[in-house]
Formats: sequence, C-alpha cells, structure tokens
Amino acid sequence: MKVSELSRRTGVQVPLIKHYLREGMLPPGRSTASNQAEYGEDHVHRLRLIRTLIAVRGLSASATKEILDALTTEQEDLHQVFGIVLGVRPAKREEEAGAGPPSAEPAPAGLADAHELITEMGWEVSQGNPATHTLAEVLAALADLDADIDWRGLLPYARLADGIADVDVEQMRGERDLLAQAERAVLVSILLEPALLALRRLAQEAKSSQHFGGKPGETNSA
Amino acid sequence: MKVSELSRRTGVQVPLIKHYLREGMLPPGRSTASNQAEYGEDHVHRLRLIRTLIAVRGLSASATKEILDALTTEQEDLHQVFGIVLGVRPAKREEEAGAGPPSAEPAPAGLADAHELITEMGWEVSQGNPATHTLAEVLAALADLDADIDWRGLLPYARLADGIADVDVEQMRGERDLLAQAERAVLVSILLEPALLALRRLAQEAKSSQHFGGKPGETNSA
Repeated sequence: MKVSELSRRTGVQVPLIKHYLREGMLPPGRSTASNQAEYGEDHVHRLRLIRTLIAVRGLSASATKEILDALTTEQEDLHQVFGIVLGVRPAKREEEAGAGPPSAEPAPAGLADAHELITEMGWEVSQGNPATHTLAEVLAALADLDADIDWRGLLPYARLADGIADVDVEQMRGERDLLAQAERAVLVSILLEPALLALRRLAQEAKSSQHFGGKPGETNSA
Repeated sequence: MKVSELSRRTGVQVPLIKHYLREGMLPPGRSTASNQAEYGEDHVHRLRLIRTLIAVRGLSASATKEILDALTTEQEDLHQVFGIVLGVRPAKREEEAGAGPPSAEPAPAGLADAHELITEMGWEVSQGNPATHTLAEVLAALADLDADIDWRGLLPYARLADGIADVDVEQMRGERDLLAQAERAVLVSILLEPALLALRRLAQEAKSSQHFGGKPGETNSA
C-alpha cells in the first residue's frame, strides 16, 4: 500500500510517518519503479504499536524508539528485551550492564529498606533496576510521614506483585515467533501498567463501599 | 514553633509555607502577642504530607489541595474520602455524584469490555469512576494491536488487584482516630501506586531471569 493508505489505516498523519521512517522507528518500505515506496501489514502493525506507546501510555518518542530498537535487535533474547523495557540495561551497548550502580547518584534514604524487602522476597535483581530507587523513595516518604508502614508492611503487596509477574511471564508463552514474544513483553510490561492501577482503583471503590460506605455511587454523608 | 523552625523541620521554604497558608492547604497557626504565629506538630505533619504528595507522587498543587480539603471536611466518612481520592466524586458539592456519566465525553472504544470485566469481578462501582475509562482505553489499544488479550485475559490481573484492595482496606484498621484513618486512605491509595508498579517491575526482572535469561544483571546475548 502507499503511504497515504498506511496513514488512513493507522490514523497517523503522513508527515509523522515520514518522521518515524527517518528516525528508523519504522522500517523502510519496498521501493517501486515509480519512485514511491510500498508498505505492508508489518508497517500497519508497527505504527499502531508506536501510536499506542506514545498516546495511550504517554512514553516519550525517544523512550519509544529505544524500545523499538530493542525489539529489532534483541528479539532473540527475551530477557534482554525485558531488561531494556525495565530500564535495567542500556539500550545501546556502550557499556556493559550489571557491574555496579549505574552512576554516582545519591542513594535515596529508603534504599537499605528496599534491599531488605527484595532479599526477603528472594528476588534476584540487578543493581541498576530503577524500580529499586522508586521503592526506596516511597519507603523513605512513608517513614518521614510516620505512616507506620515499613518494608514489612509492603510484603503483602510484594507477594501479590510476585503473582502479577507470574501472570506476565505466562503471557509470553504460546506466541509463535520471537518478535511476537518480544513485542508482547513490551505490551505486558508497559501498556498494562495503567490497567493494573485502574483495576486496583475499581477494586478499592468496591471494597470501600462494602466496608465504609453506603450504596456505590452515592454520597453518604448527606 | 515559629515559621522559620517549621521550615527547618520540614525542608519547605518559608514563602511556600506562606503560600500553603493562604491557599488553606495548611491550617493557620495560633496568633501570639508579638503579631507572629505559633505552629505545632500538626503543621509539621501536614506539610510533610503536602510535600510527599507533590514531590514523591507528582500530584499537582490543585489535586493536592482537593485531597487535603477532603481530609478536613470528610474525615468522618472514609468512603467519601476514598471517593474523592479515586476521582469518583467531585470534591466540591456543586453537583451530586452518582446520577450518571460525569459529562458528555465520547465513550472510549473498550468501554463495553471494561464493563464486562467489572461485572465479572462483581465490583459495584459508580459510573463516574475514571478508572473505568482508563481500563477501556487499554482494552481498546490491545484490540487495536491484535494483541490477543481481551478483558478475559485481564481477569487474572483483576483477581490480584482485588487482593491488593483487600490489603489496602486492612491498612485502615487499627488507626486510632478518624483523621488518621482518612490520611492513611490517601497514603495507601496514592502514595503506594508507584511502589506497586516498582514491586511488579522487580518481580518481572526476577522472573524474566529465571525463565528467559542467564544470571541476573548480566547481559546474556554476548
């Protein structure tokens, strides 16, 4: 199909498609005699993926490009794709990952507690996983607020998160080819994040109604 | 304590404290003869809460103010506090909630599927819960990508989210007074969101390493 048809099928404007082509986020089409390029279903699929990561998930264009590069170059190695998606490993191999902390950033206050939790869960993770710092920040904030929730208080959540990751891994099985598996790793990791928080918020409203409230949808402090 | 001491204890600059006082996000201090105000531990606590919601969780000042108003005016009604935190109910009672969809926004494509999932889970939620729309958006994106994950594919996640909300509700118990309970509802709902995603990402790396990879922290496509 021509680029105009590709635009129509995906809802992405032609100038933006040309930008993605220049940036290498979209593979080039097949050149035809008429000095035009011919695009296929792979292009439709890839453009929808780009649009989803940017529009639905709110990723930056550069983060999206990094993930698409990982899909192209690392599709034979799912663990590597996951590593790039999780921000554990640099997308470009300028340095080898895993040798130590990524840089000389100051350690957040809750870092020792975060490591306690990770050890208690038996999770073997690399030192560069940025999620450790996020966890540390939240633990430090909870301590600062005297919230009476320390890393042990997060263990029930950690066990449920462990269950979620089991479901995530299960999602990779049954995919036919490696690119499809790698792409699913991206979708499951990144696109499901807002869905998981939404599911928790829905469950919270339902439980709040049962435990603390009146009928759902009604204000009950009339 | 004087405002300078309040600033020192919380790390919040004096002009910003004065701004929060003007905005009503921080209750006024006790006036003293010397035409100054005297602040107490409640002010330290409230300022730390404001700082956490804005700095750690990335909420806007207006969203933070809405939540603090809910803590002040609705502390006798946990379900109401939850409703405001979840965005289900308007913080200001200009309109009664629960009467129908919040406005004439176009319904996202995945809305029917989102409702199927919510019904299947037996969650009684109000029509205005914005999480329903988030869920619908993700379901629509998955369908658009032919990702072979429909609302039934999200059921295992929904069951785990239900377990998370059980833990959330459990966190409210044991708090002495109603303000402490309401404040904990805010912390648990909002502040734990990044922690939950971080825990899932850590578990994902650990599982990815077990299932698809070599040793954690090593690149294994040498």
